[in-house]
Amino acid sequence: METFGKRYHPPGTPPGTLSRHGTGGVTRIRLFEYDDKQFTETPAPTPAQCQKAAHNTQADWLDVTGVHDPTAINALGETFGLHPLALEDILNSGQRPKVDFHGQYTFLILNLPHLVDDEITLEQVSLFVGDGHLLSFCSGDGTAFEPIRARLRQGFGRIRTRGVNYLLYTLMDVVIDCAFPVLEELGERIETLEEQVLENPDQAMLNTLHQLKRDLLLLRRALWPQREVISRLIQHDGELVNAEMRPYFGDCYDHAVQVIDLIETYREMLSGMLDIYLSSVSNRMNDIMRVLTIVGTIFIPLTFIVGVYGMNFEHMPELKWHNGYFGVWGIMIALAVAMLAAFKWRKWL
Amino acid sequence: METFGKRYHPPGTPPGTLSRHGTGGVTRIRLFEYDDKQFTETPAPTPAQCQKAAHNTQADWLDVTGVHDPTAINALGETFGLHPLALEDILNSGQRPKVDFHGQYTFLILNLPHLVDDEITLEQVSLFVGDGHLLSFCSGDGTAFEPIRARLRQGFGRIRTRGVNYLLYTLMDVVIDCAFPVLEELGERIETLEEQVLENPDQAMLNTLHQLKRDLLLLRRALWPQREVISRLIQHDGELVNAEMRPYFGDCYDHAVQVIDLIETYREMLSGMLDIYLSSVSNRMNDIMRVLTIVGTIFIPLTFIVGVYGMNFEHMPELKWHNGYFGVWGIMIALAVAMLAAFKWRKWL
Amino acid sequence: METFGKRYHPPGTPPGTLSRHGTGGVTRIRLFEYDDKQFTETPAPTPAQCQKAAHNTQADWLDVTGVHDPTAINALGETFGLHPLALEDILNSGQRPKVDFHGQYTFLILNLPHLVDDEITLEQVSLFVGDGHLLSFCSGDGTAFEPIRARLRQGFGRIRTRGVNYLLYTLMDVVIDCAFPVLEELGERIETLEEQVLENPDQAMLNTLHQLKRDLLLLRRALWPQREVISRLIQHDGELVNAEMRPYFGDCYDHAVQVIDLIETYREMLSGMLDIYLSSVSNRMNDIMRVLTIVGTIFIPLTFIVGVYGMNFEHMPELKWHNGYFGVWGIMIALAVAMLAAFKWRKWL
Amino acid sequence: METFGKRYHPPGTPPGTLSRHGTGGVTRIRLFEYDDKQFTETPAPTPAQCQKAAHNTQADWLDVTGVHDPTAINALGETFGLHPLALEDILNSGQRPKVDFHGQYTFLILNLPHLVDDEITLEQVSLFVGDGHLLSFCSGDGTAFEPIRARLRQGFGRIRTRGVNYLLYTLMDVVIDCAFPVLEELGERIETLEEQVLENPDQAMLNTLHQLKRDLLLLRRALWPQREVISRLIQHDGELVNAEMRPYFGDCYDHAVQVIDLIETYREMLSGMLDIYLSSVSNRMNDIMRVLTIVGTIFIPLTFIVGVYGMNFEHMPELKWHNGYFGVWGIMIALAVAMLAAFKWRKWL
Amino acid sequence: METFGKRYHPPGTPPGTLSRHGTGGVTRIRLFEYDDKQFTETPAPTPAQCQKAAHNTQADWLDVTGVHDPTAINALGETFGLHPLALEDILNSGQRPKVDFHGQYTFLILNLPHLVDDEITLEQVSLFVGDGHLLSFCSGDGTAFEPIRARLRQGFGRIRTRGVNYLLYTLMDVVIDCAFPVLEELGERIETLEEQVLENPDQAMLNTLHQLKRDLLLLRRALWPQREVISRLIQHDGELVNAEMRPYFGDCYDHAVQVIDLIETYREMLSGMLDIYLSSVSNRMNDIMRVLTIVGTIFIPLTFIVGVYGMNFEHMPELKWHNGYFGVWGIMIALAVAMLAAFKWRKWL
Repeated sequence: METFGKRYHPPGTPPGTLSRHGTGGVTRIRLFEYDDKQFTETPAPTPAQCQKAAHNTQADWLDVTGVHDPTAINALGETFGLHPLALEDILNSGQRPKVDFHGQYTFLILNLPHLVDDEITLEQVSLFVGDGHLLSFCSGDGTAFEPIRARLRQGFGRIRTRGVNYLLYTLMDVVIDCAFPVLEELGERIETLEEQVLENPDQAMLNTLHQLKRDLLLLRRALWPQREVISRLIQHDGELVNAEMRPYFGDCYDHAVQVIDLIETYREMLSGMLDIYLSSVSNRMNDIMRVLTIVGTIFIPLTFIVGVYGMNFEHMPELKWHNGYFGVWGIMIALAVAMLAAFKWRKWL
Repeated sequence: METFGKRYHPPGTPPGTLSRHGTGGVTRIRLFEYDDKQFTETPAPTPAQCQKAAHNTQADWLDVTGVHDPTAINALGETFGLHPLALEDILNSGQRPKVDFHGQYTFLILNLPHLVDDEITLEQVSLFVGDGHLLSFCSGDGTAFEPIRARLRQGFGRIRTRGVNYLLYTLMDVVIDCAFPVLEELGERIETLEEQVLENPDQAMLNTLHQLKRDLLLLRRALWPQREVISRLIQHDGELVNAEMRPYFGDCYDHAVQVIDLIETYREMLSGMLDIYLSSVSNRMNDIMRVLTIVGTIFIPLTFIVGVYGMNFEHMPELKWHNGYFGVWGIMIALAVAMLAAFKWRKWL
Repeated sequence: METFGKRYHPPGTPPGTLSRHGTGGVTRIRLFEYDDKQFTETPAPTPAQCQKAAHNTQADWLDVTGVHDPTAINALGETFGLHPLALEDILNSGQRPKVDFHGQYTFLILNLPHLVDDEITLEQVSLFVGDGHLLSFCSGDGTAFEPIRARLRQGFGRIRTRGVNYLLYTLMDVVIDCAFPVLEELGERIETLEEQVLENPDQAMLNTLHQLKRDLLLLRRALWPQREVISRLIQHDGELVNAEMRPYFGDCYDHAVQVIDLIETYREMLSGMLDIYLSSVSNRMNDIMRVLTIVGTIFIPLTFIVGVYGMNFEHMPELKWHNGYFGVWGIMIALAVAMLAAFKWRKWL
Repeated sequence: METFGKRYHPPGTPPGTLSRHGTGGVTRIRLFEYDDKQFTETPAPTPAQCQKAAHNTQADWLDVTGVHDPTAINALGETFGLHPLALEDILNSGQRPKVDFHGQYTFLILNLPHLVDDEITLEQVSLFVGDGHLLSFCSGDGTAFEPIRARLRQGFGRIRTRGVNYLLYTLMDVVIDCAFPVLEELGERIETLEEQVLENPDQAMLNTLHQLKRDLLLLRRALWPQREVISRLIQHDGELVNAEMRPYFGDCYDHAVQVIDLIETYREMLSGMLDIYLSSVSNRMNDIMRVLTIVGTIFIPLTFIVGVYGMNFEHMPELKWHNGYFGVWGIMIALAVAMLAAFKWRKWL
Repeated sequence: METFGKRYHPPGTPPGTLSRHGTGGVTRIRLFEYDDKQFTETPAPTPAQCQKAAHNTQADWLDVTGVHDPTAINALGETFGLHPLALEDILNSGQRPKVDFHGQYTFLILNLPHLVDDEITLEQVSLFVGDGHLLSFCSGDGTAFEPIRARLRQGFGRIRTRGVNYLLYTLMDVVIDCAFPVLEELGERIETLEEQVLENPDQAMLNTLHQLKRDLLLLRRALWPQREVISRLIQHDGELVNAEMRPYFGDCYDHAVQVIDLIETYREMLSGMLDIYLSSVSNRMNDIMRVLTIVGTIFIPLTFIVGVYGMNFEHMPELKWHNGYFGVWGIMIALAVAMLAAFKWRKWL
């Protein structure tokens, strides 16, 4: 999971100041222009091409991935008239999901979780939807959107005929559904851990449990607000989610709720497992103590008895008895048997 | 309880893509057409019969069980004009209960819990209610609806005279009431476990407790939203729940609340039992330690004393005393008695 | 507290099916007709008398106790035009408190807790208030209402002059106030337990604590919804709670809130006591271990020393020294004193 | 803190029945009549004087302390036309804070906490505010209001010129601010306890902690509803809190919120301290066990070795070796050093 | 973190009484007058200058730092017509963040956290915004506002052209963003602690953990209400937050929510770490006990055996056997090996 690196300006910096964050990735811009008849893909559009796209009647998708370059973002912001604070949010990844309704466009921030080398990674997806065009900014390499790009290119399904609102839905649907494989992976780890804890708990599991708990905590923090975002989008009195689009966004909302539901369920399961782990440890301790106690309480008195007859007093009558030695053995065996019976009766054996 | 299997499409799949889920069960379709005078049951209706039923004035119940076949579902969807996303939800069982109000019909998803070989199993029931017809889709074999089918066939009670709204109520009532026998079974298991924990706690109970907790957690996740679903159904400004039907759906709502209430009560009881279990284990540990301590603290000093007179120094005056041996016994008995008295005083005995 | 017996119909039973529940008690019906001038009490009214009472201008109270007989309830239901689902709720005691506003009457279910042989028992009280008449159904023997019957007979206070709304208030007031003696009893048990836990904790207290927790849990479940019931009654736009009656029902509401407040306070106190209990047990364990450790760590090294001089080597120079024996005693005493000092310094003594 | 004594009528008592509660204190009535020009204080007003005051144009404050006498309260109730249920609430101290808006007056109940001999005590303050007069009833001796009486007598500040609404504010302000010294005292106790727990935890602290927790629990129960009371007072559409008075009551509200905030913060701090205490106890146990283990594991094997050479077998070659004794010492020292090294390595030393 | 010192008047003090709180710091007043053309900074304005500024058309910022002097505050209050209760709040630092809408101005209290010598310190910032002027009062030395003063002096960015509403935003933005470096520092401490706890838990970490928990608790109490304050500011129907300013204050709100989110996440992480710590301690205890048990259960029986042959009975046949000694060694070694095997089998080794 992401560490908590610096993702803020020094307090007092003027708003809308864009600075370079993150290290890796190449910024890549793709422009898709389409309607039910035509489809154009421009791999690296010039500002002029963007400008033209911003004013034509076709649906446009400006698909920006690997967002780290303030200059490029600033240029796009000016072309499409985006608010400087929104641009700041795009560059400072690690924002909380939100939706803002500006006059001419709607601005959304979502978190797309995916697994990189078994590590949960969050990619920030920022979306602007305006009149006939949609801008998407991914902080990562945006491979999650590849199926949508393919559907656009192939003209498969309804996607080319329905405009940017439908495109917004497909993008949001992808972002939200990406949580399912991640949660499935976590769910499998939890089930594996659960079996181990019930069978043979050890300290290493505790660290795994702690790691899973932390992952879920950060995942919850990143995904919880998305439900609210979609809900506000649906309830907003705009033309973005009209009667035709409502079932689609409603479906998105259901999935977001299911994601939260799963996270909460997993969290409660982990809490329960910690209890199991701790009481298993208690039980083992109990077992260990029981053995020590049984051995100790049987042999300590016997050792005392043999010690008695190891004393060197001149006058010890028992030592002279012919069967003294065997008598002592008899007493000791009787004592040991009595103690074992007492333990049996107390159910310690 | 159900495991968390794959129940989602790969992210990026076009919405409304129907694919085959689940393994067992045969899809079976039955068509009931009835009013207060007539009753017809068609075991395996053809699309044409369905089409005809969709337009006549009689109340129709299209009762589909064992839903696993995308083709059949798709055909029905086209006949009755159902939304592709709703069809997707029907096939991907494991959905969260919900109600959607589309223009011409109301779409409900509910979870029907029942016991199969002492295992809690969830069956997804999807309901479409439109103008004069009701479609029900069960992910399982739908035996829970058998009494209703029987009441329809026999014309017993008000069921034939009241149209599909009343039929919707009877189906929902069955779905919700099915939770009671399941919860009663869980309640009995909890009571049994409680007695065992109070009498003689052991590690196996912990696993039972964990299993019960997990069952309740998943049951809560499946049934909690049903209260909201019925509440939204009642508050919706439609003709579905009119003044006459309100007491019936209100009764349904009360039952859904009682189910949640019971689940929460059981959960709190289990939490309390874990505390009892853990402190019982602590108490046993205490008992064991006490015995070890008593035996140890009495005999360790005595063993030291006998060790002293086992030393081989040439010059040890006590060894020559005539009553030395008996004197040592006297001292040791006095010491043991004093220690026992101290333990008695500390209430360790 | 009540066990979780079967209180539901098999799923799929037609709504409004009345069946016999419970075992004890005789159903007893009393009819009170009164206004500011007249008062009539009919011990076992005939249906005709009920019918007459239902239509006269006097205030009528039909007081039914020991409700177990479906036939009698059904007959009353038809006389007064009650909804079959409401009749079902009356017979199946163990319902959640609720209020339903039907057109002509208001239907309330409340829970009346009382102590029977130191056990908390819940009696279900169902009330119908219609135009000038009130029907009350107690699942138990209804002795809690005896003071009200006496006040009606004696014409004491305002009760005869104010109609059924005031009668409804007096009945609800009794039902809610009955929780106070029960909670007082629980409060006393909690205080007794608290003293014991702080003084001398043992395993039996844990079971008492568990029992109290469970009682409070079930009491909360039974009484919590009553606040909501009264609140909805007050906010309902009907003539039941008019300006004059509002302070009375407001007083009822305050008492219901106080009951919940007390239950929550008790629950938190019990949680705190469990912590105290567990750490007391830890502390005792600590004490026991400390004694064992002190005795063990002092005598184990000493026993080793005496063991050394109990060895039978031919060549052990110390054994021949004249003061060897006393020298060993000196060393051992010095060692013991040093260890005691170390324990003192570590504050273990 | 107050014990849970009987403070309720037997269920079924007619509403408004006044009975004597509490034991100590003398009922004392004072009447203050004032406007910006005049000021009269009547120490023990006759009913006629009260009657007159109820109808003049001056602001009147009828200040009743030590409320235990039903007759006097009843007489006042009739003079000023107060509702019998409100009078009942005044006498039964221990009510939950509330505000009731009757037609002609507003009725408030508040709790005034103060310290008596280091014990937290709650005094119930009941206030009636009507057209130009205010009645206050304290269940205690009302010393908390002495500064206000002094300000009225001296005519200091705005108090004489502003009417009863301002007087209501000053009284409420005193009641709410009285929580601060109490909380400061609790805060100091918590800080002292915290230092002790971190330094040297013992069982007595646990009882102090439990006592503090209980005090905070009961204080929270008594003060939590006051926020709601002031909030409802401010939001009520009456002339009581007009535009001019709003900042004053707003200030009251802020203080009530601060009180609750502090209580919650203290509660969380106590929870944290219990964790610290418990783990400190665990740690001490650990320390004790470690010492026992080190001593035991070093000397038990050594004692075995010396035991070996204490055996009396006729044929034991080592006993005859000239340096056998010193050789055994060498082995034993080597063993002890090896064990100490192992403990060092495991960081037990 | 701040201690809980006296910050309240004795109950009963007239409202608006100003008294001196705090000890350090010099009160410093600066007046900034600016519009898009002019800029004047007056380091220590006279009352007349303030008076003049209050009525001119330029935007004025009266920047007061180190607020401890009642006389100066009172004079400013009279010049600008501020409510006495607001002045009281300014002087009594430690207030809860809030917003009050008085007729002519809006009054805000915020908390500015910063680190002084690794200690979290809260500075109270009180803001009055009226028609064309803004007054800010810092309880500390106000260095956090230095970048804004610099931007005003240099005329950099939009700050001079936008009036006091924009100035209000910049100040609030600074106050809220100041939490990020503090939280980053806490986050780093938490991560360090987490590594230590997982590697090598000891008692000192517990105190660090407790300290972090307490810091977060007090930080939450101080910063939580700020979200509500900004939200109320945005929703207020005034000209303060107009359409142009909304995105800026919305950004502020997002940051306040992120701060709370981080605090909650840290709190949950600390809770998780306590569990880890406690179970690590349990595990270590387990390890220690295991060693003691293994050593004890192996050597206690062996010591008994050698004790047997140390007895001095005259008739002990084994002592005379030629290989008795070696036979005993054989038995003892076999016993020890058997026990080690048993431990291995139980997975204690």
